[in-house]
Amino acid sequence: MFKRVLVANRGECAIRIIRSCRELGIESVAIYSEADAHALHVKKADRAVMIGPDPVKSYLNIHRIVNVALDSGCDAVHPGYGFLSENEDFARAVTEAGITYIGPSPDAIRDMGSKTKARETMIAAGVPVIPGSDGELQSIEQALELAHGMGYPVMLKAAAGGGGRGIRRCDNDEQLREYYIVTQREAMAAFGSDVLFMEKCIIEPHHIEFQILADSHGHIVHLFERDCSIQRRNQKLIEIAPSNFLTPELRQQMGEVAIKAARAVNYVNAGTVEFLVDKDRNFWFMEMNTRLQVEHTITETITGVDIVSQQIAIAAGEPLPFTQEELSFRGFAIEFRINAEDPKNQFLPTPGRITRYISPGGMGVRVDGCVYAGYEIPPYYDSMCAKLTVSGLDWKTTVMRAQRALGEYDIRGMKTTLPFYRTIASSEVFMTGEFDTGFMDKHPELLDYKAYERREDIAAAVAMAIAVHAGL
Amino acid sequence: MFKRVLVANRGECAIRIIRSCRELGIESVAIYSEADAHALHVKKADRAVMIGPDPVKSYLNIHRIVNVALDSGCDAVHPGYGFLSENEDFARAVTEAGITYIGPSPDAIRDMGSKTKARETMIAAGVPVIPGSDGELQSIEQALELAHGMGYPVMLKAAAGGGGRGIRRCDNDEQLREYYIVTQREAMAAFGSDVLFMEKCIIEPHHIEFQILADSHGHIVHLFERDCSIQRRNQKLIEIAPSNFLTPELRQQMGEVAIKAARAVNYVNAGTVEFLVDKDRNFWFMEMNTRLQVEHTITETITGVDIVSQQIAIAAGEPLPFTQEELSFRGFAIEFRINAEDPKNQFLPTPGRITRYISPGGMGVRVDGCVYAGYEIPPYYDSMCAKLTVSGLDWKTTVMRAQRALGEYDIRGMKTTLPFYRTIASSEVFMTGEFDTGFMDKHPELLDYKAYERREDIAAAVAMAIAVHAGL
Repeated sequence: MFKRVLVANRGECAIRIIRSCRELGIESVAIYSEADAHALHVKKADRAVMIGPDPVKSYLNIHRIVNVALDSGCDAVHPGYGFLSENEDFARAVTEAGITYIGPSPDAIRDMGSKTKARETMIAAGVPVIPGSDGELQSIEQALELAHGMGYPVMLKAAAGGGGRGIRRCDNDEQLREYYIVTQREAMAAFGSDVLFMEKCIIEPHHIEFQILADSHGHIVHLFERDCSIQRRNQKLIEIAPSNFLTPELRQQMGEVAIKAARAVNYVNAGTVEFLVDKDRNFWFMEMNTRLQVEHTITETITGVDIVSQQIAIAAGEPLPFTQEELSFRGFAIEFRINAEDPKNQFLPTPGRITRYISPGGMGVRVDGCVYAGYEIPPYYDSMCAKLTVSGLDWKTTVMRAQRALGEYDIRGMKTTLPFYRTIASSEVFMTGEFDTGFMDKHPELLDYKAYERREDIAAAVAMAIAVHAGL
Repeated sequence: MFKRVLVANRGECAIRIIRSCRELGIESVAIYSEADAHALHVKKADRAVMIGPDPVKSYLNIHRIVNVALDSGCDAVHPGYGFLSENEDFARAVTEAGITYIGPSPDAIRDMGSKTKARETMIAAGVPVIPGSDGELQSIEQALELAHGMGYPVMLKAAAGGGGRGIRRCDNDEQLREYYIVTQREAMAAFGSDVLFMEKCIIEPHHIEFQILADSHGHIVHLFERDCSIQRRNQKLIEIAPSNFLTPELRQQMGEVAIKAARAVNYVNAGTVEFLVDKDRNFWFMEMNTRLQVEHTITETITGVDIVSQQIAIAAGEPLPFTQEELSFRGFAIEFRINAEDPKNQFLPTPGRITRYISPGGMGVRVDGCVYAGYEIPPYYDSMCAKLTVSGLDWKTTVMRAQRALGEYDIRGMKTTLPFYRTIASSEVFMTGEFDTGFMDKHPELLDYKAYERREDIAAAVAMAIAVHAGL
């Protein structure tokens, strides 16, 4: 087992890794930018090294981070999620420095990182992918022919696009003719390439992902699925495990396909195979994330398996301690990402100083927090304050517990996503447990909550208004 | 289901009940003494009623509490643990006021509350009890004859004694002759009665208790066992579930006996059957607690069953939602009672103001707390700040996680049991998972920890010493 692990991340993610290190008897070395001097991960690690003045670039400085790992005598590096966690160059630089990278091989990161390469690999492995053009479109005529073959609606996508840009849905020939030219023009302007490809448009699909663990001895298992259908602009808001939408048969079938997908790239370590599932329960491979995911906590909660500890053990060469048949899950878990954001204002971040922080507790409540009363949330990073994971033996108990725990959560000093989540968790539609990726679009009323729920908050807002008005 | 429940308790226990009420959609009414005006249970309940100026007697005032329940429109009362939770008069007064008592019948409370009556009932039901005199001893000669029959050592006990007083262990005839007279004299002086009885002395037994749930339709199940062997002067310090000491066969056998014991008194609601188990795994009924127990959280953690919600559902007449065969447990759980006490000074309470309070989080960590930064712990009640329940899939992971969580726990302002627990959790003997009630006597070195572990604590202590010396 490793002696000392460098945690190449910050905040909640770094704390998560530090906790598993400690439970395995491994020392942890944190890194931090100047802006993060007061961050909680710095306090929790056995040792912390300041890596630079730039708030963001510091965490992306491969050369510097590898050197810190070497200088501090680390024999392994955990990338976490975000930052360098899906950067093949980082994985390679760590490995070439003689340090173990706690994650998949650089080649697996690369192969799954390229959408077209991943698609080809999956097709070759017999994994269902979303129907679409094999490679780039050559002409409008070819596009029309393809669209007729797969049926409308289709998605036109800029090959060089990303982050939801350079994408247009076409519902008929007329739209396809029009958007083909518009999207080409926009793609050239935005990405310097007018290459387009086409995929069938899956209408309001479920976003279902399978957690994979693969050791270096050829054993691969899945830890069942997460339903991440509640999203806003492709950003996950709330995740649940297991999905209320899957039948046991479909779960088994998709689990086997997920393992097949991982095996196709000789995958080792933890990863996630993401699928789109339509209302008729057809499913297609979407992508594979070659890293730990934010929402891994709900899988840990229903299975009892510590995924980060497993990542570390796998990287140390240990075989998986269980077979697929020995794995099972109990009850339900829901994760809420408690962010310092204002849902009523386009979810814009609301950095600032936390004046009060009381987290919920009791049965079925797990909190992975990275803030404390008095902490100043820096404006440079994602705005996560904590992840709240709630669990129960059945769906109704889990939702009621979520309402209770969200109600207990008391964060003051800035707007957070808490009141928004309270509204969702208390809604009848959420209690049904049935939702697809159209959830937020179909329920705009969920954003229509009272901004100030507590008397203290109302009083503070009134006092602030008076002070502003009086020019104080 | 009930509309509104009066929670006849305070602190952590009251919060536990309020949480289940909320998850069941039931309003909660808290009660509080003047001294408890700032207690957290007052803030967490839907409504709170001040019941008197006396810190302790207020919570024992049956007439007043029943009237508050009536006045506030409550249709049920939960007694919690401690205070009136095993008082048959309270159960009867609540019931006679037309309100549902969330607990067993007054008769069951009475029958299990009397040691001699409980013993008689268990013998009649075929439940093994500790060998002893059937009723009071008549003479030294009779005592000697009984002792020869059951074998030394034996315990001489004052029938009217309690709380560890009026008890003497006798290892041979000579001691029995001497202590018979001494104990009679002391019993008369202390309790006004010189009646004695005798029990076989079980040497360094394991304290194993089974959680029972019994509905009003005649169904009784057990939720497996808790091992509460780590005690100090018969006070439980650390509890674990399941016990490392039981074999599956013994677990099943003792579970069946526990159900038999509950059935013998027509038990309804949650209860606990306590056993002593000797090193050869012989077991004897010790007593039945006719209430929720402090350490119920570890059973909840390994089974996923919310015991307080089950208590409420049972009292509302609902049948148990599971059979014995449907119940199972996963992994291990350990509970630590984080008290404001100084273990190095006879565990004397250390009431005072909490200056900092940061609770642990992450995987497998449940906190049931009742304090917060700035809270002044009143000197009138038990000194519990929180219960920390840690869980993992195997014993080693659970202990490592306990070390990690105890290390993260940061309570300032007074001495607590935290450093003592850190020492225990890090000890080799605790990692073995093998301990009986002789644990603390056999390991006095566990009390030999550093009183100040953190630099900040050392600095504060030094500053205080300087201030005191300077007469500031």
